Amino acid sequence: MDSYGFLLDVALILISTKLFGLITKRIEMPQVVGALLAGIILGPGMLGILHETEFMNQIAEIGVIVLMFSAGLETDMEELKKTGGSSFVIAVIGVLVPLAFGYVLTSFYNTSPNAFLENMFIGIILTATSVSITVETLKEMGKLNTASGNAILGAALIDDILGIIGLTVITGMADTSVNLMAVLLKIVLFFVFSGVVGFFARKLVKYWFDRHDNTLRRFSVLSFAFCLIFAYVAEHFFGVADITGAFIAGLIISNTSKCTYVASRIETLSYMLISPVFFASIGLKVVLPELSTQILIFSILLCVAALLSKIIGCGLGARCCGFTNVQSVRIGVGMISRGEVALIVASKGIALGLMQEQFFGPVIIMVVFTTVITPVLLKFVFKERANDPDIAAVHSELLEHYEEVEAYEAASQAMLDQHIRMKENEATQES
Amino acid sequence: MDSYGFLLDVALILISTKLFGLITKRIEMPQVVGALLAGIILGPGMLGILHETEFMNQIAEIGVIVLMFSAGLETDMEELKKTGGSSFVIAVIGVLVPLAFGYVLTSFYNTSPNAFLENMFIGIILTATSVSITVETLKEMGKLNTASGNAILGAALIDDILGIIGLTVITGMADTSVNLMAVLLKIVLFFVFSGVVGFFARKLVKYWFDRHDNTLRRFSVLSFAFCLIFAYVAEHFFGVADITGAFIAGLIISNTSKCTYVASRIETLSYMLISPVFFASIGLKVVLPELSTQILIFSILLCVAALLSKIIGCGLGARCCGFTNVQSVRIGVGMISRGEVALIVASKGIALGLMQEQFFGPVIIMVVFTTVITPVLLKFVFKERANDPDIAAVHSELLEHYEEVEAYEAASQAMLDQHIRMKENEATQES
Repeated sequence: MDSYGFLLDVALILISTKLFGLITKRIEMPQVVGALLAGIILGPGMLGILHETEFMNQIAEIGVIVLMFSAGLETDMEELKKTGGSSFVIAVIGVLVPLAFGYVLTSFYNTSPNAFLENMFIGIILTATSVSITVETLKEMGKLNTASGNAILGAALIDDILGIIGLTVITGMADTSVNLMAVLLKIVLFFVFSGVVGFFARKLVKYWFDRHDNTLRRFSVLSFAFCLIFAYVAEHFFGVADITGAFIAGLIISNTSKCTYVASRIETLSYMLISPVFFASIGLKVVLPELSTQILIFSILLCVAALLSKIIGCGLGARCCGFTNVQSVRIGVGMISRGEVALIVASKGIALGLMQEQFFGPVIIMVVFTTVITPVLLKFVFKERANDPDIAAVHSELLEHYEEVEAYEAASQAMLDQHIRMKENEATQES
Repeated sequence: MDSYGFLLDVALILISTKLFGLITKRIEMPQVVGALLAGIILGPGMLGILHETEFMNQIAEIGVIVLMFSAGLETDMEELKKTGGSSFVIAVIGVLVPLAFGYVLTSFYNTSPNAFLENMFIGIILTATSVSITVETLKEMGKLNTASGNAILGAALIDDILGIIGLTVITGMADTSVNLMAVLLKIVLFFVFSGVVGFFARKLVKYWFDRHDNTLRRFSVLSFAFCLIFAYVAEHFFGVADITGAFIAGLIISNTSKCTYVASRIETLSYMLISPVFFASIGLKVVLPELSTQILIFSILLCVAALLSKIIGCGLGARCCGFTNVQSVRIGVGMISRGEVALIVASKGIALGLMQEQFFGPVIIMVVFTTVITPVLLKFVFKERANDPDIAAVHSELLEHYEEVEAYEAASQAMLDQHIRMKENEATQES
């Protein structure tokens, strides 16, 4: 391969993930499914045009960190505290049930000596909720600002935090030479450390922006650097996964007043280069011939477990909090989809030796399945009915916060479009 | 090094290039000087904290390509044709004189068997003008929209194109197994190919945007992929340097109506990650102990040659076109600074074996020197005087185009600031 051959690889990844993403979008499937398919089809599993390289893996690693950082940026802790009780209960039961399902199911298939941790790990993968698909669907249907819609949004955010804690504990235990108490102590220390850093970071940023006003670009770059350092520190000094560090770094920055700007810059960095490489590299790791009959059956069972465990877990949680039966089912269905977080956790697991390669294919299939099935089921359970309990629109600051970054992006585009139209008019008048 | 150690490297690069950039900016020196210094100080030449890695080199390569792509995006061919005559004469003489100076000076020092090409290559490095420093300085002084200011802007853009052609020819000749005619034929074919692609690309983009409106983000990603492919194709099929391909790709996209949006997205990608890595990696390549007395003297002479050759060459060109003596000196001085393009060309030369490592230090010193001296000299020669020939403000569409991307960025920031202020007010009222 020539020294510049990797340029072509990057270009191929950008084009194929975008094209497949558009195709899946056109047939009303989520774009992430297309991006995954692009990697699988171009990769060694099928056409063999693209292969994993050190460079791609490292870009993908940055991609993962940026995705988790964004997830943290979008989580508004203050608002979460207000949403409070019911979302928390839904999230907790909605995490424990999939964890149990994943553990039990994998136990039947895993004969490895390290089985306990590995099975727990599959359980952890099942806990992650990817709320974006649900949000998109509900928005389209005009059902996002219902009581059920809000409960889903709140619970999914808490879900992420619980999932991160689970991941943190289990990756901490991966190094079997240290005992459990030491691991837990380190994790507690990490969260204390994060709290202290967060406290001072907030003060420092406030002090900085009170004195200087025009430093937003600088702030974006330094926030990104802060995220990378936090990811490094988490893994290096506390034995906590780097993605946990990135997520916490996002939470810390989301506490500052300029978080929307940072989020929009990080998003550009993400979609222009690094997250397509991440999704493609996930696809590249899937080698189809490995899907033996046994693994195929496991894949199907994993999909069923993923589907049922969230409906049962979150539905139960919602029912406990006084939601009606109809609402509980809606909430459960809204939490089914697993997206990038499940993929991120899975690829982390392979890197750490906590997951066997043979389970990677089934996990991808599960992610694709839950992502595709969620909108379909949502449309079904959210059908209007007599005495619909979700008839009234709910005001929610959580929802506002979620839509802010998107609104900013849309407003910039509109402004630019107008600017271009003005220019074109000028040009027409001149000629 | 741990598998995640590179995260810390990237963070260090982002922080150090930003901090040094701010320090040099504060003492009224260009930020690029700070970014270079960051690499030199943290690199093996001094502190030894950062080292070149494969990953960094590949990110830097993408950084180079993006920088050249941006340069192409900012070049409006239509406007250049209108500016026409005088800028062209200034650029041509302003390229030939430094080329000659560089060739002759290096001849005294270079005893390599491949000396002709190597000496010509140093000449090519001296041709590149980095107009951004001059533009910033003139803008501050309110002198950008003078006749001299405009001539500088036009000539610097043509300069880039001439420099690219020179680079294309010389890198084509690097492979001594093929003869000159074959090289020239391939280069001509490349430009014909670019023209054809450009023609169809413009039609295709117009067709696309007439049918779909809300596809700007997609267009940015695909434009970036197009740039990478064009860079690859240039090098792989035509033996032309990849940076030439990237520049031409930028020219092609700049012909489309949505170029401003693409430029602003590419700029974000650039400053958030890849151009800091590029500047740092240039600094990392500089190993100070290699600067023997002889090389030190060469460095000083190279600085003098860089300074005088542009003043003489561009000044002469301006004088031929009917500018006054004062204006000609102003134009000459405005073209002195060499910035990222010189660095890009130099690092390309080392990669291709067209430049010896020992000349790399002097080139960096020359770039830093010309970048630092230009604002100082500009302030001196642009001092108001009786009967100032540059008294009248000139209207220029070239200037407008140059400021457009910047204005877009500034407008987005202002909008966001307002949005944040509104939110803060709301928060204050609530509490």
